[in-house]
Amino acid sequence: MTIENEIEIIAKNAREAALHTASLSASKKNDALMAMAYALETEKEKIFSANSIDLENGKKNSLSKAMLDRLRLDENRLSGMASGLRDVAAMPDNVGEVINMKRRPNGMMVGKMRMPLGVIGVIYESRPNVTADTAGLCLKSGNAILLRGGSEAIHSNRAIASVLSAAASAAGTPEHTIQLIPMTDRKAVTALLKMDKYIDIIIPRGGYELIRFVTENSVIPVIKHDKGVCHVYIDRQADLDMAWEIAFNSKVQRPGVCNAMETLLVHKDIAARFLPTMIRRFGEAGVEIRGCEQTREIAREVSLATNKDWDEEYLDLIVAIKVVDSVEGAMDHIANYGSGHTESIVTNNYKTAQEFLAKVDSSAVMVNASTRFNDGGQFGLGAEIGISTQKLHARGPMGLDELTSLKFIVYGDGHIRK
Amino acid sequence: MTIENEIEIIAKNAREAALHTASLSASKKNDALMAMAYALETEKEKIFSANSIDLENGKKNSLSKAMLDRLRLDENRLSGMASGLRDVAAMPDNVGEVINMKRRPNGMMVGKMRMPLGVIGVIYESRPNVTADTAGLCLKSGNAILLRGGSEAIHSNRAIASVLSAAASAAGTPEHTIQLIPMTDRKAVTALLKMDKYIDIIIPRGGYELIRFVTENSVIPVIKHDKGVCHVYIDRQADLDMAWEIAFNSKVQRPGVCNAMETLLVHKDIAARFLPTMIRRFGEAGVEIRGCEQTREIAREVSLATNKDWDEEYLDLIVAIKVVDSVEGAMDHIANYGSGHTESIVTNNYKTAQEFLAKVDSSAVMVNASTRFNDGGQFGLGAEIGISTQKLHARGPMGLDELTSLKFIVYGDGHIRK
Repeated sequence: MTIENEIEIIAKNAREAALHTASLSASKKNDALMAMAYALETEKEKIFSANSIDLENGKKNSLSKAMLDRLRLDENRLSGMASGLRDVAAMPDNVGEVINMKRRPNGMMVGKMRMPLGVIGVIYESRPNVTADTAGLCLKSGNAILLRGGSEAIHSNRAIASVLSAAASAAGTPEHTIQLIPMTDRKAVTALLKMDKYIDIIIPRGGYELIRFVTENSVIPVIKHDKGVCHVYIDRQADLDMAWEIAFNSKVQRPGVCNAMETLLVHKDIAARFLPTMIRRFGEAGVEIRGCEQTREIAREVSLATNKDWDEEYLDLIVAIKVVDSVEGAMDHIANYGSGHTESIVTNNYKTAQEFLAKVDSSAVMVNASTRFNDGGQFGLGAEIGISTQKLHARGPMGLDELTSLKFIVYGDGHIRK
Repeated sequence: MTIENEIEIIAKNAREAALHTASLSASKKNDALMAMAYALETEKEKIFSANSIDLENGKKNSLSKAMLDRLRLDENRLSGMASGLRDVAAMPDNVGEVINMKRRPNGMMVGKMRMPLGVIGVIYESRPNVTADTAGLCLKSGNAILLRGGSEAIHSNRAIASVLSAAASAAGTPEHTIQLIPMTDRKAVTALLKMDKYIDIIIPRGGYELIRFVTENSVIPVIKHDKGVCHVYIDRQADLDMAWEIAFNSKVQRPGVCNAMETLLVHKDIAARFLPTMIRRFGEAGVEIRGCEQTREIAREVSLATNKDWDEEYLDLIVAIKVVDSVEGAMDHIANYGSGHTESIVTNNYKTAQEFLAKVDSSAVMVNASTRFNDGGQFGLGAEIGISTQKLHARGPMGLDELTSLKFIVYGDGHIRK
């Protein structure tokens, strides 16, 4: 059997499951989620031993320390996965919700009803906890899921998926609701991306190469979870104490994630007062600084940023700093180099704040707040499947509602069109 | 210059325009829409003479009578286009609307703001009025538009687009807000579909071939406006008078459009009472009937439907009829052969109605109403750019809101993440 045939069978089984998963009752889904959480804990040894194979292989293939760390599962991370599933079980069921029901002039009632998307394919790299998080959210929102993790985590992912799938089935969800693509061959991904007959949406989470490959090869609609080149702009009318805190928090609190700041923009009129303290605080926290010419006039010790720095997602204790002439200059820089993820302005000027909010075109735009808040939990969505950087369907954190679609429903009384 | 270079320049100009179109005031946009409507009327001779070239060519290329009719512009249709633009001008501006603004436990305010999508590419066939309708809706929602009509209407489309674009510019909208791709070469479409750097969304409106070509070649997100294989299901507990009216209206009121019924499903317990009158009424209206074996047992004069009939979009006075065992049988048939467009049940049974509404997965699902109501105007959205048959972003009629995206906005007060 070719790899294309194998993938087709997997995808077809998912479609078949989705027809039934869509109408599972809330209590059935919650029972399954609780059973999945419990199974992760009771079968942890199986998962840890699969994980240790991946870690061994990772060392052999000289994965970076950071990548090995992301790959590693321990008691703490496993119980995080389990409690994530329990949190999802505790959230309200959103399938079947009816909104905007209104009476039309002819007496017909028209509204929208929330439905699962159907079959969701998630293609991701590295972190094996994604396997449990996405499976939980997709099941809760009534979808079937096809998981395709990175080859470096294949043993961990296989173990987690088989534990979850068995627990969900035993609790009464349709077989094939949760499936992992077991092949590591890239051909499997290419084949998957052609299965628009069976799969409704593809979510790629990972680096530039992965996202580009998926976008170019998919005939299925894609929701990109792309990189975050996030900006904080310190306006000339910023409160300096607040500005130091927000810039520091945006960069340092957790530098390895997509909503961390990568470039700090500073209004020229405030740069000489703002930058010395900021640069000292970054220095104390071990942050490497790459500045524009004007930054270096204020702080000679800073190394010179090249053009490449402006669109780089460091995901590390590195920051690029640029002095700009105005809020327009800041917005132009963001439009040219940003990735449409998260941008924040620090200002006490009403008009400047409103202009920045209205004009900057990113998944989250903030006034006087750290970029680190662009997160499903922080925004009140509950758990998230990731942060969408595109404009269609879902923008910013994707929670349960973003894994559904709204169809129109009509209650008539013999209505015909004249 | 290659065709790819030419398309890149057009797309880049659109992106440049979109940055400014996004922040046009409502009054500026409405002035432009009124000027566009006026220009269509004052320059009608230019448009009619271009249209007559297309009609001549159409006759030479032996286009069908129906296609020639769709291509033809007259006083009536032109004034319909103009009044469509004036209707869009009268609608409220939706750009900048803020929804769901809520205070988080930490005091931070989080909500969503409506933004234009940016640059919208519309690829369509035949009807030149689409050129004016889509240009008006895209401008009102703050977007730049790239229009690519069919080669059979190229002279009409060029004339309409140049009249609209000149009027909009004169009224103060950015140059290149409304552009038509002037080349008829298919390579132009292929090149367009690769311009994800400049174009945010592609909407294909047309037949299967066009939609498939776009889906397979686009690296830009696509919203399909696919065919409508719409069903009416007459339940065993239907009110027969209502059932005859709804089935007749769904098929006959305007058979050439996507929300017309193509297949009539009838519960076996009611078939013998329902079908004879229905078939007589269809016959009187000139409707050709293709029935299943059971239908033919009731009405011998009906020709036998083949498997091909069940997924055919006739767009004509032809109907397929199938007798089913139960509402489940009807829903299975719809899931197997429907195109996810519009389905209606006629029943007085509460439970059956609710089950049909909840389980059928189409852009509009109705009880006791004609399928012909799946329409932006009828649903209260105002004008529509078409009817989306996919699940992501927009499902069913796409109005102004569906041409926008929602970004998160945050009002903080020095908030940092702990």
